[in-house]
Amino acid sequence: MEIEYRNPAEIEKRSFAIITEELGNRTFPEEIALVVKRVIHTTADFDYADNLVFSNDAVSRAMNAIRNGAHIVTDTNMAKAGINKKTLAKFGGEVHCFIAEPDVAAEAKQRNVTRSIVSMERAAKLDVPVIFAIGNAPTALIQLEKLIREDGLKPELVIGVPVGFVNVVESKELIIRSGVPHIVARGRKGGSNVAAAIVNALLYQLVHREGF
Amino acid sequence: MEIEYRNPAEIEKRSFAIITEELGNRTFPEEIALVVKRVIHTTADFDYADNLVFSNDAVSRAMNAIRNGAHIVTDTNMAKAGINKKTLAKFGGEVHCFIAEPDVAAEAKQRNVTRSIVSMERAAKLDVPVIFAIGNAPTALIQLEKLIREDGLKPELVIGVPVGFVNVVESKELIIRSGVPHIVARGRKGGSNVAAAIVNALLYQLVHREGF
Repeated sequence: MEIEYRNPAEIEKRSFAIITEELGNRTFPEEIALVVKRVIHTTADFDYADNLVFSNDAVSRAMNAIRNGAHIVTDTNMAKAGINKKTLAKFGGEVHCFIAEPDVAAEAKQRNVTRSIVSMERAAKLDVPVIFAIGNAPTALIQLEKLIREDGLKPELVIGVPVGFVNVVESKELIIRSGVPHIVARGRKGGSNVAAAIVNALLYQLVHREGF
Repeated sequence: MEIEYRNPAEIEKRSFAIITEELGNRTFPEEIALVVKRVIHTTADFDYADNLVFSNDAVSRAMNAIRNGAHIVTDTNMAKAGINKKTLAKFGGEVHCFIAEPDVAAEAKQRNVTRSIVSMERAAKLDVPVIFAIGNAPTALIQLEKLIREDGLKPELVIGVPVGFVNVVESKELIIRSGVPHIVARGRKGGSNVAAAIVNALLYQLVHREGF
């Protein structure tokens, strides 16, 4: 077959042009548009034009946090793998994921809770500003909301995009109602790829803005 | 919020029951059903009930290959992160991803091709039976088809589920027409998460069948 576009930057540019064209009359504030379009780019699923919910100034606040060195916590190693860690490191940030640590599994088993719950408790002890990017586990999101409400945890942003059929829809509504800065994919859809895409959208806007 | 289901195995069982219920009259041969349902479980997107295409005996052939120690090659580290490597190792398999290796980047730059193309050429030199799981790069799929057609590469299975708007649809049709054993998500949709989910569906069916 004839490959029309070979250069990765050119492929991405053409992809975003197609997405913009197919969104038609749907317009968004610029900062939000870049997140929505990157998620559609990652999933080829235009449902995200409707289901992504942003708290006030979520994008600009998160970009400021990253510029000031905020770290990212993910609920899966897959989301961690998808985040552009080199770009994040330029601002001083790192990505943490505690889910596969042996002592997290041991503690979860002993307490009969999910590893995601224990992971979030570990993350809450990090002594740096944190953006949480949750693409898989609704129990992670539910635990986060509890840590915010009961223990005064103050995340810079919660990206709440777990996917699935059990506890998922409700866990996202909890975050939306919590008052914490958030970007949430309402409904069942989401995923580790979506969580990583949202973090990368923030990173790339910041790089663009800062002229890196 | 009240968490109705806490146990991960119970959550998965309930999720699959909901998916089966919502598929309604749509039925599939059992081996195929388990792949389709796991992809829907991973994406919450029922479009996959329509767009997944299987060559004859693709699932049982791939399961045999894994039981005989086949390795998996992915196009992204994200897909690699999502595959259950512990379970694969029980059968002697490993997951390879060449995309982030420094000499792959150097060669791609020098030849002015994508890193995915160089990665596939590296993978073609592996001296073991291989299942390719491509969730991101259409150029990887296009290069694979060329290696099959021109160089006699004989993959045990090609999982062709790149996502996106440029070269993607066409690259998948190439694989479907190639005669190679395949599982392909026709159209624009797919992703690293989908590629990993299909590999895991094969692994879990095999574990179930072998009584591990």
